[in-house]
Amino acid sequence: MKIKDIGEFELINLISNKPKNKEVLVGIGDDAAVIKTKKLQLLTTDCLIEGDHFNSKWFSPEQIGSKAIEINVSDIAAMGGIPKFLLISLALPNNLEVDFVKKIYDGMWKSSKKYDIEIIGGNMTHSNQIMISVTLTGEINKKNLTLRNNAKPGDYLVVSGNLGYGRAGLRLFQENISGFDKVKKKYLEPKAQLKKALKLAPFVNSMIDISDGLGSEVKHICKESKCGAVLYKEKIPIDIDVKKAAKILNEDEYDYALYGGEDFELLFSVSKNNIKNIDGYIFGKITKKRDIKLKSFKEKKNLDKMGYDHFSNTV
Amino acid sequence: MKIKDIGEFELINLISNKPKNKEVLVGIGDDAAVIKTKKLQLLTTDCLIEGDHFNSKWFSPEQIGSKAIEINVSDIAAMGGIPKFLLISLALPNNLEVDFVKKIYDGMWKSSKKYDIEIIGGNMTHSNQIMISVTLTGEINKKNLTLRNNAKPGDYLVVSGNLGYGRAGLRLFQENISGFDKVKKKYLEPKAQLKKALKLAPFVNSMIDISDGLGSEVKHICKESKCGAVLYKEKIPIDIDVKKAAKILNEDEYDYALYGGEDFELLFSVSKNNIKNIDGYIFGKITKKRDIKLKSFKEKKNLDKMGYDHFSNTV
Repeated sequence: MKIKDIGEFELINLISNKPKNKEVLVGIGDDAAVIKTKKLQLLTTDCLIEGDHFNSKWFSPEQIGSKAIEINVSDIAAMGGIPKFLLISLALPNNLEVDFVKKIYDGMWKSSKKYDIEIIGGNMTHSNQIMISVTLTGEINKKNLTLRNNAKPGDYLVVSGNLGYGRAGLRLFQENISGFDKVKKKYLEPKAQLKKALKLAPFVNSMIDISDGLGSEVKHICKESKCGAVLYKEKIPIDIDVKKAAKILNEDEYDYALYGGEDFELLFSVSKNNIKNIDGYIFGKITKKRDIKLKSFKEKKNLDKMGYDHFSNTV
Repeated sequence: MKIKDIGEFELINLISNKPKNKEVLVGIGDDAAVIKTKKLQLLTTDCLIEGDHFNSKWFSPEQIGSKAIEINVSDIAAMGGIPKFLLISLALPNNLEVDFVKKIYDGMWKSSKKYDIEIIGGNMTHSNQIMISVTLTGEINKKNLTLRNNAKPGDYLVVSGNLGYGRAGLRLFQENISGFDKVKKKYLEPKAQLKKALKLAPFVNSMIDISDGLGSEVKHICKESKCGAVLYKEKIPIDIDVKKAAKILNEDEYDYALYGGEDFELLFSVSKNNIKNIDGYIFGKITKKRDIKLKSFKEKKNLDKMGYDHFSNTV
């Protein structure tokens, strides 16, 4: 059955459920949701567009729905916060199967449940491409707030896990290369690093999630913190399978990590004193001098100045 | 200059400004915005899609931006609340002129300023159609909350102003009919009825904004309040210019009001005792019997049963 056959009223009935959280006074079904809050509130929004952020050839509808939630939880995690409530804005082609939409919601519910968050409102409309715009609120204690603007010269730059899966997975699908199931799954089913973020938050000076590639995120932290950085290329953690994929694709795995994006690991800066309290891969340092250098141990020279303009052109 | 020529970093710089409201601890530029709240919070989201909600042939970019804000303020108004903070999610084609995007933001700023609300975050991505997804928060005292689910049998059904401009304006543009400047302007520049809503809130039993046509909104109120309604067709307020437009277009002006939508006036139900405290056009009554009837004085008979199914097919 197509969406145009059942209409908005019935479609909303199919995907609505009553909120359980007592802080929700009014959920889905009125002009706005109503919530009671005591703590500081976080608000973030992120959008998935068919063709740009997912391709229905590779992604199941459950994976699309799940990704829409994970990328927003990733933003709340990067602030050191706890995700709470979701608003979902869907724009859908008329001839989309109702079952496809239900499965998108199955994916959203599955991820929401994992993080104990609830869908309390939203909106549905027509479009040519599938677009899922998600707004997520979160809660935070001020002392745990991990912003982009507090990196200090001398801080270590650290990532929470391996990078490059996002781009490698995409390239494997694009070039129709078989195998590499783990890499592909990491691309299709990215996960927010909420647990890691909550453990890190009390110890780090600055934090950001890696949605647009490590290079771009380092640039964000440096720009907001008014400092620079030096990165050691070979210290950037990359899984052996991503390296193998890059080799077959005749591409550079470090380009995947630096400019690829969609990895949703955490990038953070941490002082020497606190380095003992954190888990992660140290790959660089924050510097007073406001440029960003990428050094290679192998070649013992600066590979790239990577100033702001360079970044804005490559990412 | 095209968007693809300047990149996301520069584009965000062009459209960012520092929040003035002291409740905003972190605004645009981090993974999420941070706000301090004391009162009950309202959350709503609404989406404008090129081709569906606006056509760039008729709408200026300022009007597009302004409409994106007004339709969300309209939702907060319909809850009896005061709008506060905005998140803007933009999906834009690569070859869009940067100037066009700046003008969309000019429209958003203009409307935001009018209601004393601020843009505190958002997101930007690529798409084939222009898509603007807006999330708006609001504040409310619990006693002013005007939900859809509290209409009582015997309540008068009232609208806050003339209907039909939205559909009439669209049809005039579609059929390339000259003149009718007032109707066209009402279509291009819809306004949220925030002032009216705040005056009404203490006196009404239920309230909703008219975004999808009067018929659909009456249905929402009846469904949520578990009641029915009788509507008197000729009591539905329609401007003489909308009637003239309908005549030229050989269409029914009451169809515009009932099924057209995009008028953004308020629909509310109010008890006999409170009717003296409100301004508006009475056009019907809430009934215990759970169907919706449209009566015509002229023809002295039921014109239409307008049950749930009928509505869901026409709206």
